[in-house]
Amino acid sequence: MADLTTTLPLTSESIHKAYSKIQQYVHKTPLLTNKTINSIASSSSSTSPSPKFNIYFKCENYQRIGAFKARGAFHAVTHLIDELGLEGVRKRGVVTHSSGNHAQALALAASSFDIPAHIVMPTISTPSKIAGTRDYTPHVYFSGSTSEEREAVVKQVIQDTGAILVPPYDHPDIMLGQGTTALELQNQYNSLKEDKQQQPKLKVVLAPLGGGGLLSGISIYFSNQPEVYVIGCEPSYQGGNDGERGLKSVPQQRIEKVKTLTIADGLRTPVGELPWKVFTSESSMKSKNLENIYSVTEDEIKQAMKLVLERMKVFIEPSAAVPLAVVLHNQEFRQWAYEKQKEEGVLESGWDIAVVFSGGNTTIDAIVGLFGESQDTERAEGKIGKDGKQVAENVAG
Amino acid sequence: MADLTTTLPLTSESIHKAYSKIQQYVHKTPLLTNKTINSIASSSSSTSPSPKFNIYFKCENYQRIGAFKARGAFHAVTHLIDELGLEGVRKRGVVTHSSGNHAQALALAASSFDIPAHIVMPTISTPSKIAGTRDYTPHVYFSGSTSEEREAVVKQVIQDTGAILVPPYDHPDIMLGQGTTALELQNQYNSLKEDKQQQPKLKVVLAPLGGGGLLSGISIYFSNQPEVYVIGCEPSYQGGNDGERGLKSVPQQRIEKVKTLTIADGLRTPVGELPWKVFTSESSMKSKNLENIYSVTEDEIKQAMKLVLERMKVFIEPSAAVPLAVVLHNQEFRQWAYEKQKEEGVLESGWDIAVVFSGGNTTIDAIVGLFGESQDTERAEGKIGKDGKQVAENVAG
Repeated sequence: MADLTTTLPLTSESIHKAYSKIQQYVHKTPLLTNKTINSIASSSSSTSPSPKFNIYFKCENYQRIGAFKARGAFHAVTHLIDELGLEGVRKRGVVTHSSGNHAQALALAASSFDIPAHIVMPTISTPSKIAGTRDYTPHVYFSGSTSEEREAVVKQVIQDTGAILVPPYDHPDIMLGQGTTALELQNQYNSLKEDKQQQPKLKVVLAPLGGGGLLSGISIYFSNQPEVYVIGCEPSYQGGNDGERGLKSVPQQRIEKVKTLTIADGLRTPVGELPWKVFTSESSMKSKNLENIYSVTEDEIKQAMKLVLERMKVFIEPSAAVPLAVVLHNQEFRQWAYEKQKEEGVLESGWDIAVVFSGGNTTIDAIVGLFGESQDTERAEGKIGKDGKQVAENVAG
Repeated sequence: MADLTTTLPLTSESIHKAYSKIQQYVHKTPLLTNKTINSIASSSSSTSPSPKFNIYFKCENYQRIGAFKARGAFHAVTHLIDELGLEGVRKRGVVTHSSGNHAQALALAASSFDIPAHIVMPTISTPSKIAGTRDYTPHVYFSGSTSEEREAVVKQVIQDTGAILVPPYDHPDIMLGQGTTALELQNQYNSLKEDKQQQPKLKVVLAPLGGGGLLSGISIYFSNQPEVYVIGCEPSYQGGNDGERGLKSVPQQRIEKVKTLTIADGLRTPVGELPWKVFTSESSMKSKNLENIYSVTEDEIKQAMKLVLERMKVFIEPSAAVPLAVVLHNQEFRQWAYEKQKEEGVLESGWDIAVVFSGGNTTIDAIVGLFGESQDTERAEGKIGKDGKQVAENVAG
């Protein structure tokens, strides 16, 4: 990875610079709205009054390789080229370990410059992800799934090839690259409002929080806009809300280890060190770069995902549904928004808020696995005799 | 429905007129491309050489109510208003029978003008479709599922209310309204090519064929462009390819009854009389308005649908996947395209073709039903002991 002494400072201006470098390589993804979801998000339950939201969805599921990760990868690779020269990087190559979107993103970015990319993946990775990565690079290595096992293989690759490590989130180049999502989102939002001759007034941006590359990039971008609240969204299952727990502990402390099998599989990692620093520090213009972190249950994530697929006709992965799940279901967030809107006297018109759909890399098989379960359970409850025979007939038939 | 003597002639010019009437009420849906799908569609199998395609997807799944049907419904309703005056139509109301997208489309169009819409639905309609229709009109009636039973209820509604029947496809207003899909598609395609400073040269437009409202509209629109081939796409399951069979029988003859439970549930109806006339007649500039009709199997439809969801991240219903399934899997179509491309000397650059995604109104439950089956079978084959006990543990655990 590029030497930390040569990376840009973590400021909004650096994100503008990052954007000018990667813009030609990444897609400008659409910013969509949906009346039905606005009305669901703005309706009161029997027990509590409702804040009102006009939601703008930033569709990074339509980004290259199907996720925002392409932004950070292109930014990291172009910075390496600036620093070492194209031939210098080509000679050494790049390496990372990832079972997911970062692997494909780095392989794509490297292949765009004819740079060899070495990708270490856990043996248990799904065949479609392995195939997806192999579309861009022949150098795929397998390891066990613990971080020690993966790092051992990476170390070996570095020894053998001299490849440069590009980590998935814990590096300024990656964070600034992902932050271009926020810049693009705000530009698109402003044009939309301009077209309608309305005053732009974006109040909240919600994004998923896993390692923190995306959320820290967004926080950095808005660090000089005190009127915009940035909010992180996590799955609560099996303690997957390490960011929320760390932020709310006294004293605040980064939680370094997490072991969760949440369906939001992009968000299983603990928050990285550098992103954590961004979240918990203030800028010259803002007392908190990150306003807060909220979490949701597996079922709330599934409900939000279902709504997006069925109503918006947009295909997203479970991790991408987490921020909308917070908007719809997290009572703490909704109560906070309600109080603020009341204070501001805007309960009638509500807030313009943005939700980042981080990616769309899931499969129909995975969806059948996620949503088919309840059907299996029904079948099991309804039809299994004590000896199980009836199920055998039912399934085999 | 508007008197047939007052409807516009079935010409491309009439579709321009229809568009100027409905444009303010319908969405301009996106025209998308996808490199991965182009490359899959253009790759040779071991047994046959491949034509080459650059596919433009017209996404009517992003149309209002999630399907192209909104176009025809708005055109029919605005024509009624021209003819009888707004108050005249409001006094009488409109009525149709439909279990699907046309019901919601008519209810939406009518509600936009405060016209009462009476919708007759089979009792067995899925709850989500009934709820979707009730979002726009309180006047939902239930009937048995045979056409006799449905028509009896419609007749009763007309007697009781004086409502005007708006059929789903077999009427010039509907056909011309749906044809605006083609006009919009070609405009968007031309602008895209212009932006790239390339010569526009659209060769083929493929659309699903059920009752024929959409496909006849498209055929009419291109009837004065001899260089563009229009192609209908059907499911072959249980004879669902009535259009193809009718076209290929000697003498050609419309097949009036079809009974198929194809997963492409929007395409279960036989081709209507007026659309059939359009397909089998020639225009002054073209020997065949419709070039041909091809059909695909259930499995081919599922493969195409899976590809669109997973690779394009676009959520479509099975009926909408039928044209892409033809492009990918129908050897007769591919052979024809290959021969033509060879003749024209364009095997290298290939053809620009358009595929219409007709709608996106399906549910996750339906997808689990469609794609979950094979997993059950695997599980059954892999894990069931002869007494079924192992499955019982597996399912209940």
